[in-house]
Amino acid sequence: VTVLTGASPARRASTPAPTARVGMIGAGQLARMTQQAAIALGVELRVLTEDPEAPAVRAGATPVLGRADDPAGLDALAAGCDVVTFDHELVPAGLLAGLARRATVRPSPAAKAMAQDKLHARRTLRGAGLEVPPFAPCDGAAEVAAFAAEHGWPVVVKARSGGYDGRGVWRADDERDAARICREAEAAGVALLVEAHVDIAAELAVLVARTPSGARAAYPVLETHQRDGICIDVVAPAAVSADQAARATRMAVAIADGFDVAGVLAVELFLTGDRLLVNELALRPHNSGHLTIDACPASQFEQHLRALLDWPLGETGLLAPAAAMVNVLGPPDGSDPARRLTHALAVPGARVHLYAKAARPGRKLGHVTALGATADHALDRARAAAAALAGP
Amino acid sequence: VTVLTGASPARRASTPAPTARVGMIGAGQLARMTQQAAIALGVELRVLTEDPEAPAVRAGATPVLGRADDPAGLDALAAGCDVVTFDHELVPAGLLAGLARRATVRPSPAAKAMAQDKLHARRTLRGAGLEVPPFAPCDGAAEVAAFAAEHGWPVVVKARSGGYDGRGVWRADDERDAARICREAEAAGVALLVEAHVDIAAELAVLVARTPSGARAAYPVLETHQRDGICIDVVAPAAVSADQAARATRMAVAIADGFDVAGVLAVELFLTGDRLLVNELALRPHNSGHLTIDACPASQFEQHLRALLDWPLGETGLLAPAAAMVNVLGPPDGSDPARRLTHALAVPGARVHLYAKAARPGRKLGHVTALGATADHALDRARAAAAALAGP
Repeated sequence: VTVLTGASPARRASTPAPTARVGMIGAGQLARMTQQAAIALGVELRVLTEDPEAPAVRAGATPVLGRADDPAGLDALAAGCDVVTFDHELVPAGLLAGLARRATVRPSPAAKAMAQDKLHARRTLRGAGLEVPPFAPCDGAAEVAAFAAEHGWPVVVKARSGGYDGRGVWRADDERDAARICREAEAAGVALLVEAHVDIAAELAVLVARTPSGARAAYPVLETHQRDGICIDVVAPAAVSADQAARATRMAVAIADGFDVAGVLAVELFLTGDRLLVNELALRPHNSGHLTIDACPASQFEQHLRALLDWPLGETGLLAPAAAMVNVLGPPDGSDPARRLTHALAVPGARVHLYAKAARPGRKLGHVTALGATADHALDRARAAAAALAGP
Repeated sequence: VTVLTGASPARRASTPAPTARVGMIGAGQLARMTQQAAIALGVELRVLTEDPEAPAVRAGATPVLGRADDPAGLDALAAGCDVVTFDHELVPAGLLAGLARRATVRPSPAAKAMAQDKLHARRTLRGAGLEVPPFAPCDGAAEVAAFAAEHGWPVVVKARSGGYDGRGVWRADDERDAARICREAEAAGVALLVEAHVDIAAELAVLVARTPSGARAAYPVLETHQRDGICIDVVAPAAVSADQAARATRMAVAIADGFDVAGVLAVELFLTGDRLLVNELALRPHNSGHLTIDACPASQFEQHLRALLDWPLGETGLLAPAAAMVNVLGPPDGSDPARRLTHALAVPGARVHLYAKAARPGRKLGHVTALGATADHALDRARAAAAALAGP
């Protein structure tokens, strides 16, 4: 017979070590959602950031205060971590290579370079036999004009590195546009490439996780919708044929294998006619995969942790016939959508994810997901909740 | 044209206030899982604990270091919080009543008393017309014998308060058992009640959330399996008739309404023949509802936050035909199941939740869930993963 006294002796027991320690360079929303996944697995997530109030820190990740472009910051993060990874692409390649000699960095700097340098990625992918949009390096307006003479106007001029959410991408309709873009880029020291403008039937994304041991798991093919270069919403599964989905998945797995990726790889593809062209790569969890948190047994964030740590990968099927994700962008009036949270929570079936970031017009501040019998059904619900957050 | 420099100005923006601040008395696994739900909603969870390494603190909840039986600790927690709630029943009723005069405490102390004093709960429920097992207050072995003379041996003797996981509950087969139990309880200052032993066909649990505004949402009826008074596993939906499920749900909703519950209420029921008897109440998220994290659009933890804050309630249906949860208890050898995590992750479809608690034999250290086409299918998968964690 055990008689209770009311006090629980459990409270003073020593706590166990984490199951693993993962260091992440960056502490934005991707790190924040990785932290959410880390809790259930008993993983300690440490994040390198200059901001003690960064989104991931506010979600409980352990902050390591420092800069991603400072070797001391990188070393402070790596100390005691089983593996170091990224929530962004902003670590100088030289520092990354140095870090990889002193710590386990996944994905490897060589693989990561595929996401850091678009010209390098295009060349490498084409060299591996994967179809990409026609492209050329570009040192000035004359080269853009020569490229356009072959492929036609308009063309797309891109920064080789550093661009995201539509930044670092410009459309040039003629030589005058090209001259202006090249002049401003040169003034800012930004290296460029030029690409053919592709007639896009759909933009797809395939997320595949791969472990250092070579296990891989792909999620259902996603269809993304952009406005002004920013991802607006995503549905799964994509409205493509089974053959197209299978080809897209094979391409993503081939890239993951070919470049020895460890962690989650996001491959963005253009569907043009029946052809699939590789557009961008991200070697980390990706905005297009946020719906996996609510729609799949293992989210892309949990899967990233599993893959980085060479643990068994989780299941990637959809829990419903369809799922949708809508980004919550800061509204034009600068107000914070979080103040309208209760309106979004009133939308049946919508699941709200806020990032605890300061509101600014156009900034990604959160996302909403919904499951549904069809993609349109799921998208309608998610859009209703996102609209409630965006305000009247 | 915007040209990037590589540095993101976003990193130094000021961070917004949380959407709400919730104080929780206690920082165990229930607080930990509440913290996981709080992240997505932008809610700041503060937890009152003496342990700066408590499970919820390790998951990122803000610790308020203090004691639940100290008014100063309670006040420190309440300061700046929109609402104060609980992850356990161990706050003295007098202190709680005092706190409720200075802060918003949900559920109210009057409602919370239903979970703190089993004799009070039995009397109140019976008074409200709800069926409970036959019971009587008990000041000594003679009263147990008198009760048994009416209801038959064996009887169940319970501590009026403080018991959980089989502690504070004893079966008495005869007068000698009764005398021993009463003697030891008296020595420890534990007040008792005595109940008839019920022939149980199934143990059920109904979770219902209720807001201060009176909105309620019930989850599908759960079926729980106990061993030595400890919950071993849970499946949803329960294997009961539609009529039985409807009656169980009505009883839980009636209790929530009748006692003006705010937050999640767990009602444990005995099914005996075709009759439903109310067993225990918990006015907080409950072990039986852990599967809602993976199996429902809104988990019981998110729902608890929504209900406490008088926000719209979330959807409570199952995302699959069936779901199961198996508790991970500390194995007899004292080893930490977290060390065997990768074996559990290899079980297809299993979802592992670790609590970052020090391992002790029999202690709840985590849980595993799985979805399935049937309850048995889900339970098989969850059991396989839990067995992998328990060790060889």
